[in-house]
Amino acid sequence: MAATTALTASAFAQAESPLPPKVEADAKKLIEKALADDQGYRTVEELTTKVGARLAGSEAEARARDWAVDHLKSLGFKNVRIETFEIPYWAREKEAAAIVSPFPQELEITGLGGSVATPEGGVTGEVVRFETMTELKNYPEGDTLAGKIVFVDEPMVRTQDGSGYGVAVAKRSGAANEAGKRGAKAALIRSVGTDHHRFPHTGLMSYEKDVTKVPTAALSAPDSDQLARALEMSDGPVTVLFELSVQTREKAPSGNVIAEIPGRTDEIVLIGAHLDSWDLGTGAVDDGAGVGIVVGAGKLMLDKRKKPERTIRIVLFGSEEVGLLGAFEYARAHAAELDKHVMGAESDFGAGKIYQFQTRYGESQLDKAAAMARVLEPLGIARGDNMAGGGPDVIPLRIAGVPVTSLRQNGWDYFDLHHTPDDTLDKIDPDELAQNVAAYAAFTWMAANMPGPFREPPAEEAAPTEDVADGAQ
Amino acid sequence: MAATTALTASAFAQAESPLPPKVEADAKKLIEKALADDQGYRTVEELTTKVGARLAGSEAEARARDWAVDHLKSLGFKNVRIETFEIPYWAREKEAAAIVSPFPQELEITGLGGSVATPEGGVTGEVVRFETMTELKNYPEGDTLAGKIVFVDEPMVRTQDGSGYGVAVAKRSGAANEAGKRGAKAALIRSVGTDHHRFPHTGLMSYEKDVTKVPTAALSAPDSDQLARALEMSDGPVTVLFELSVQTREKAPSGNVIAEIPGRTDEIVLIGAHLDSWDLGTGAVDDGAGVGIVVGAGKLMLDKRKKPERTIRIVLFGSEEVGLLGAFEYARAHAAELDKHVMGAESDFGAGKIYQFQTRYGESQLDKAAAMARVLEPLGIARGDNMAGGGPDVIPLRIAGVPVTSLRQNGWDYFDLHHTPDDTLDKIDPDELAQNVAAYAAFTWMAANMPGPFREPPAEEAAPTEDVADGAQ
Ligand SMILES: [Zn+2]
Ligand SMILES: [Zn+2]
Ligand SMILES: [Zn+2]
Ligand SMILES: [Zn+2]
Repeated sequence: MAATTALTASAFAQAESPLPPKVEADAKKLIEKALADDQGYRTVEELTTKVGARLAGSEAEARARDWAVDHLKSLGFKNVRIETFEIPYWAREKEAAAIVSPFPQELEITGLGGSVATPEGGVTGEVVRFETMTELKNYPEGDTLAGKIVFVDEPMVRTQDGSGYGVAVAKRSGAANEAGKRGAKAALIRSVGTDHHRFPHTGLMSYEKDVTKVPTAALSAPDSDQLARALEMSDGPVTVLFELSVQTREKAPSGNVIAEIPGRTDEIVLIGAHLDSWDLGTGAVDDGAGVGIVVGAGKLMLDKRKKPERTIRIVLFGSEEVGLLGAFEYARAHAAELDKHVMGAESDFGAGKIYQFQTRYGESQLDKAAAMARVLEPLGIARGDNMAGGGPDVIPLRIAGVPVTSLRQNGWDYFDLHHTPDDTLDKIDPDELAQNVAAYAAFTWMAANMPGPFREPPAEEAAPTEDVADGAQ
Repeated sequence: MAATTALTASAFAQAESPLPPKVEADAKKLIEKALADDQGYRTVEELTTKVGARLAGSEAEARARDWAVDHLKSLGFKNVRIETFEIPYWAREKEAAAIVSPFPQELEITGLGGSVATPEGGVTGEVVRFETMTELKNYPEGDTLAGKIVFVDEPMVRTQDGSGYGVAVAKRSGAANEAGKRGAKAALIRSVGTDHHRFPHTGLMSYEKDVTKVPTAALSAPDSDQLARALEMSDGPVTVLFELSVQTREKAPSGNVIAEIPGRTDEIVLIGAHLDSWDLGTGAVDDGAGVGIVVGAGKLMLDKRKKPERTIRIVLFGSEEVGLLGAFEYARAHAAELDKHVMGAESDFGAGKIYQFQTRYGESQLDKAAAMARVLEPLGIARGDNMAGGGPDVIPLRIAGVPVTSLRQNGWDYFDLHHTPDDTLDKIDPDELAQNVAAYAAFTWMAANMPGPFREPPAEEAAPTEDVADGAQ
């Protein structure tokens, strides 16, 4: 009996988890509660109904901030506040396109954020179609496309992890920039999206320095097919009219909304989402869902009425869609305490089930990731690699060395809706959203209460340990 | 041996099919050819690409007629012609809606065909929601809704045979008429459709005599949900702005396009589809598909280079969407030869697979239907009852006593697209379309070459036969 006890104790010591049993038990209780809770769904429901679309810098985004402050205070969060900043403002006004000849008919387009306007009455030109951005880039520069309207028809590959986005999104800025270098009048792209509905997808574009700025817009997938067919069926040139008017202001107000569950130390675990959306839909999957997920998770932790070791900070970033402006502003305003940020994670990929727990921690800290992964596994979450991005708004934190986590969501349908009018509440499955809330609550609680750092300790301290380790091999 | 022969001959006589073996063999060959042919698909592809949307009475509908004449002539049809007529014209111009308070945001709407315009700048009023048309009809008449905007939020049931349409479509005219009887300013309806995309569905409405005409429009399903949620979340009234401007003309040109495969007799088998579409999509499933199906079937029969017994007449009706105007005009113009129309059938329910062969023939002629059904069965087509409608544009023929056939299509997804911008070519499955072409080719060939009538013979001739039959029981 004594021998058995000794053996058990020894086995326990060998497998000793970095996750204290009490923290693990609390995390598991949070999962249980979250799966039966609807605060996450009710949060996105309120935001998308009471505010709807909330373009960066707009009066609607300001209303979203006010709603968020009221909502977070009423839920009981502490230190609820807005950190304001200013951004350059861009909004679409009128937009239209049509095939003028030989098959006159309207086309569904939407201007890309940041595009210059066309002259009033629009531009008309012969369409030159490129199957890929590469094909356009390989086209000789100069006046080679003078007077023409460039059309980049590159499709996007549907994937679970959203990896089709990288190639597809390149044309959002690329088409206009390459068109400008070749004297074209305008650039149209096939929408960056995976659906086959008649919704064009908007999104940010930006001009390269010193390039001639040409107006640019996205066609819906069916309209891209239609234009391609018109080019095929026509004996001569196909002429298109494209008109876009925009409203711009040098400075418009934006802001990040912050709420906290204060901890016992000055260390911070940050979970976030972005509060702004594009103007076309009500911003439900992008990123009302993320707001619901982190607020829902936060509320469950708040309801524990047990102070976490570290402060849990929820940040609802402003102006994400127009260049992560809230994220960079956050990093600037909080530069002095970035070293106190022990963890960052953003939910910004819809409301699909989380299927993978991906980290970017110090290599020597991966036992902590493994311990957390075991708690998340019953939610159907696999352990991913240690190359996490963490979400767009934590990029500035990651750059500053903050460890980040990606609770990766099933994005199979995400780019059907992304940046379209069809991004509305009905696309969110409350049960899948609840699984997200459960994962965020458990993960965040563990990150806030697990002893020790997630960063790699500074090299001068770590070096001796490494020497020992090397010597021991 | 002699006895055996006698027995066989007798058995054959008992089971003798009204379908001559040669006709049956030809029908089977047509099926085989159709399943490997793409003329049907190429026809709808050309129509929807070269013409696109083709509103009744518009210049685009005129281009569709010209395209159809060229197309049918180039395929080799005979007696290709346009039979013109005039219709009252209605077209939308500007349309917009928004929640004004307490949750300001835009709503996606589309005006219903035939609606009066709002005053410039629109109407603004408090929304009163009714879950069903019945609820609105039961609401007291008088000034009971003075100054209000009526919102009928009745959903539509998804079914294979489209039977959910009847109840749902009642609100398209009903909402405005009942609103007008109660002093309301305007009427909004949940779209008559089964999808959950941000597309409002248009369609014809008409005012009752002596009713106050109020402007009316349809909200997309997500916008209907949004408005219902706003009403639920608001402590006070929800106010909506609705603006609609329309263009109307007393007379605009329309027409039916006719093509034939001349037969040996002056009897006519008519198959049709409608050439016009609503203005929002490119009219692919409604009813470019039907045009492709009947033209594709006709072309295969033409290619047999064997004169059918009866003339096969393809009619591409104009102005179906605005009240079957082409159909009534056809019946008027061809009144003198309606008794020579032995059969009518229209394809106007998309491009889904045909699952049922439904007839409306004389009761004494059902052995002919049974014989045709056996040929169609290998296409996955079940025998339906004898209560066929035949398709909207053959209603006037049916009323005049012409036997009709419905080759019923799987309409599970049809009302996702119906009368929306999303009705585009990519929604058509070429293989399912080919199955339709096969069924139409086989059915039409059999109807054109099978001896005897499909109508019930006139009572004075039929009576003795019936007496005999009764007596034999
Ligand atoms: Zn986002
Ligand atoms: Zn986005
Ligand atoms: Zn139709
Ligand atoms: Zn229709």
